[in-house]
Amino acid sequence: MMGRIICAGLGPGDPDLLSVKSDRLIRQATRIAYFRKAGRAGQARSIVEGMLRPDVIEHPMDYPVTTEIPFDHPDYNRILAAFYDDWADRLAVLAETGDVVVLCEGDPLFYGSFMHLHSRLQRRVQVEIVPGIPGMVGCWNAADLPITWGDDVLSVLAGTLPEDELARHAAAADALVVMKTGRNLPKVRRALATAGRLADAWLVERGTMPGQRVLRLAEVEGQDCPYFAIVLVPGQGRRPEAAE
Amino acid sequence: MMGRIICAGLGPGDPDLLSVKSDRLIRQATRIAYFRKAGRAGQARSIVEGMLRPDVIEHPMDYPVTTEIPFDHPDYNRILAAFYDDWADRLAVLAETGDVVVLCEGDPLFYGSFMHLHSRLQRRVQVEIVPGIPGMVGCWNAADLPITWGDDVLSVLAGTLPEDELARHAAAADALVVMKTGRNLPKVRRALATAGRLADAWLVERGTMPGQRVLRLAEVEGQDCPYFAIVLVPGQGRRPEAAE
Ligand SMILES: C[S@@+](CC[C@H](N)C(=O)[O-])C[C@H]1O[C@@H](n2cnc3c(N)ncnc32)[C@H](O)[C@@H]1O
Ligand SMILES: C[S@@+](CC[C@H](N)C(=O)[O-])C[C@H]1O[C@@H](n2cnc3c(N)ncnc32)[C@H](O)[C@@H]1O
Repeated sequence: MMGRIICAGLGPGDPDLLSVKSDRLIRQATRIAYFRKAGRAGQARSIVEGMLRPDVIEHPMDYPVTTEIPFDHPDYNRILAAFYDDWADRLAVLAETGDVVVLCEGDPLFYGSFMHLHSRLQRRVQVEIVPGIPGMVGCWNAADLPITWGDDVLSVLAGTLPEDELARHAAAADALVVMKTGRNLPKVRRALATAGRLADAWLVERGTMPGQRVLRLAEVEGQDCPYFAIVLVPGQGRRPEAAE
Repeated sequence: MMGRIICAGLGPGDPDLLSVKSDRLIRQATRIAYFRKAGRAGQARSIVEGMLRPDVIEHPMDYPVTTEIPFDHPDYNRILAAFYDDWADRLAVLAETGDVVVLCEGDPLFYGSFMHLHSRLQRRVQVEIVPGIPGMVGCWNAADLPITWGDDVLSVLAGTLPEDELARHAAAADALVVMKTGRNLPKVRRALATAGRLADAWLVERGTMPGQRVLRLAEVEGQDCPYFAIVLVPGQGRRPEAAE
C-alpha cells in the first residue's frame, strides 16, 4: 500500500504551539525525516523530543553545506540541488511502503527547505502539508507586539538582501519583519538606521524556544546573533481611540 | 482569586489547526468571549463548535457597527472606541473572579480586533495571548502555494488601501498577500493588473473552512467575494536547480 509524504509544520519552537493535527501525526509516525546541520541535533528534531514512538525510524537529512560556501557561489547551487534530488528520490522510495512524516520549523511553505523537496516530489507521490505558526508570529507574540493595525503594510525581508535594498523596503512599509538575521545583524541594523526605523525595532532571539531573548535592537551590543533570530518593527496604523 | 484574560488564537478555520495550547484552554474554559457581527453566529464561535464544556458561559461581543458607516467617518471611530472601552471594563470585572478565554481568528496580534482590548486592559489585569496560524498561512497552504523562497520580499497589504497605493506596493514586492479583500475585490484586481501581477494572483475564499474556494484571480467572474478572502501572489525567488 502506497504511502504519503506528510510535511508537518512545527510552529516557532514551543511544542505546545504545534497544531492539533501536526501533534497527532508526529505522535503516530513510524517514520520521520528532518533537515539538520551535520553534527547538530537539529531544531526540528529538538521540538518533537519526547513525543515520538519508541519504535520510530529516523531519517536525518544532513545539509551538505550551510554557510561554508557563500550562496552566490556556483558550487552552492549545484551541491544543494543534488542533495534535494537525492532526498526526493529516497523519500519517494520510502513512500512506496507507507507514510513518512517530514518535520519542518514554522510553516513549511514560508521560506521552508521542504519546498525544494515538494517541487521535486510533485506528480511522483502524494504530498500532504500541514501548516504551522511561522517563526515571526511566535516572535511578535513573545515580544507582546501587535504587529499590524487597520491598513498597515507589512513587509517581510530577508537579512541576506543587500543593505540598500533592505533600507529601501524598510522605508516603504509600516511594519517590518526581518528574517535570517543571524550573521547579517550589523547590516540589518545599519539599514534600519538609514531608513529611520532603528528606534522602533526589536530583536527576538529563539522566540518561544528555551533561551528566548527580546531586546530593543538599538540597545544590542556586539554582533553575536543566533540563526533563530528575527527583527520586528510594529505598525502604528489606524485604531479607534477616544477623541482627543 | 484574580483571573486572567487569555486570548486564544484559533488559526485559519479548520479546528484541527488550533494549537495544542489553544485547544486545551478552550476545552477547559468556563467563560468565553468573542466578537461577532450582531445577529450572526460569528466565525470564531463556529470554529470551536463542539469543543466547549456544557456549562460554559458565553459572552458574545456584538460589533455596534461593521460596514454600515465608512471607516473614515468620525462616528465610526467614536462608536468603536466606546465599544472597546466598554468591553475592556466588563472583561476586567469578569477577571476578578477567574479566567476568561477570548477567542480570536488567526493570530491575535496580526490585524486582530483583540489588540484594541489588549491596549485597554494593560496594567489593569493579567493578559495572556496564545499565537495562532494566521489566515493567510492557511490560505497559501489551501492553494498549495509556496509563498516565499530565498530572499523574496513579501508584502502584506489591506484591500482597504487606495488603489494607487495597492498598485505601488504590489509592484515593489516579490510575493504578495492582500487581506480584507471582500467588497474591495474589484479595486484589488485593478491594482494588481496595473502592477503587472494579475496573471500570477490567486483568490482564496474561506481558506481551510467549509466552503473553501481557490481560484485564479484573473478568472474570477463578478464581484461577489466573502469577508474571509485573501489574494496571494507567490514569490519566485532563488532556489537551487540542476544547472541548465
Ligand atoms: C529558512 S527560514 C524558515 C522559516 C520557517 N519556515 C518559518 O515559518 O518561520 C529560517 C529563519 O526563520 C527565522 N525563525 C524561525 N523561527 C524562529 C524563532 N522561533 N525565533 C527566531 N527566529 C526564527 C529566523 O530568522 C531564521 O533565520
Ligand atoms: C481583521 S483581519 C483578521 C486577521 C486574523 N487575525 C489573522 O491572523 O488572519 C480579517 C481578514 O483576514 C483574512 N482571513 C482570515 N482568515 C481567513 C481565511 N481562513 N480565509 C480567507 N481569508 C481569511 C480576510 O482577508 C479577512 O478580511
